[in-house]
Amino acid sequence: MSDPIEFYFDFSSPYAYFAAFKIDELAEGFARDVTWKPTLLGVIMKTTGNTPLASQPVKRDYCTKDWERLGRFMDVPWTLPDPFPIATQTAARAFYWLNDRDPTGARLFAKTVFSTYFGEGRDISTPETVADIASGLAFHKDDLLEALSEGAVKQRLRDEVSAAMKAGVCGSPYFIVDGESFWGSDRLWMIKRWLQSGGW
Amino acid sequence: MSDPIEFYFDFSSPYAYFAAFKIDELAEGFARDVTWKPTLLGVIMKTTGNTPLASQPVKRDYCTKDWERLGRFMDVPWTLPDPFPIATQTAARAFYWLNDRDPTGARLFAKTVFSTYFGEGRDISTPETVADIASGLAFHKDDLLEALSEGAVKQRLRDEVSAAMKAGVCGSPYFIVDGESFWGSDRLWMIKRWLQSGGW
Repeated sequence: MSDPIEFYFDFSSPYAYFAAFKIDELAEGFARDVTWKPTLLGVIMKTTGNTPLASQPVKRDYCTKDWERLGRFMDVPWTLPDPFPIATQTAARAFYWLNDRDPTGARLFAKTVFSTYFGEGRDISTPETVADIASGLAFHKDDLLEALSEGAVKQRLRDEVSAAMKAGVCGSPYFIVDGESFWGSDRLWMIKRWLQSGGW
Repeated sequence: MSDPIEFYFDFSSPYAYFAAFKIDELAEGFARDVTWKPTLLGVIMKTTGNTPLASQPVKRDYCTKDWERLGRFMDVPWTLPDPFPIATQTAARAFYWLNDRDPTGARLFAKTVFSTYFGEGRDISTPETVADIASGLAFHKDDLLEALSEGAVKQRLRDEVSAAMKAGVCGSPYFIVDGESFWGSDRLWMIKRWLQSGGW
């Protein structure tokens, strides 16, 4: 099997949520695995000079309509959560900790975090909610809650975000396939085309 | 025939260039016309708070690769022009002046401006080049050059840009179909879907 597709995302990114429903299946069609890599878009934007949606009301109004329409067109449940956006470092830290223990379970955790936030509209920023989601997937809640306060777990996420930025990640979702970068849920067709043509 | 699709764009926008190759054909399939509306992205961005690509080197690097790949995948000639981006008010003013005289010729002019800039990589910012392009399409060069210095022609573009902003246009390309907004060359599939389903 060739190298996995790297899937970088922020748990508070609607476009990443939509892509998360599609990328595994797309990759499977080419006998590829997907490495899920939560990152922090706020930290990345500070470096790249991009502007968060909150400070662009016209763009935000447009995107609000676009997400609702994408949910309908892609047949994916969609709720604009309130509050939105939110801090996602807790969910991201939990993901890497879980991933070191059970990668399959961690991916299911990531999908459930997305569905809880954008499908049901429930805030997923607190350790309690994050641990409840993990607990529902047969992880031990108290172990995770304890881990979330550890310096090493916090540092792990900082390292992952740094690595993402070093790899050129400047948005969410962002995919790297054999060194080739694709940004946006609307680039899935290009990833498919790229894989079909053997990287051309 | 239903109302035309409004196609807002800046002549210096690569994604608008790619969309310009596709939108007329897409619209024809639904017995729709397309109203081409050049606008000034720099002016719009000052209002919306979006950041120009020039101030985001990481994003610019990504987009440079993305444009080259889009040209290949969409089988559209692509050259990253130098200088890029450029001021496009001259080409936009010329378009509206030509459009009042010969809409079909004006659309051909717009396509030729795009092809000259992104297909051949030739600067299209000067009145001389813009008038040469119009002249090659059987417009009278000196009449256009004279018009380009007129206050009314300059005001016309200001009015068009204001109207675009009032309509919510916040990027390029930007489409409005029966009051529904679509932003980006990667939203053409959604326009198609929207038209297919009769606006749902």
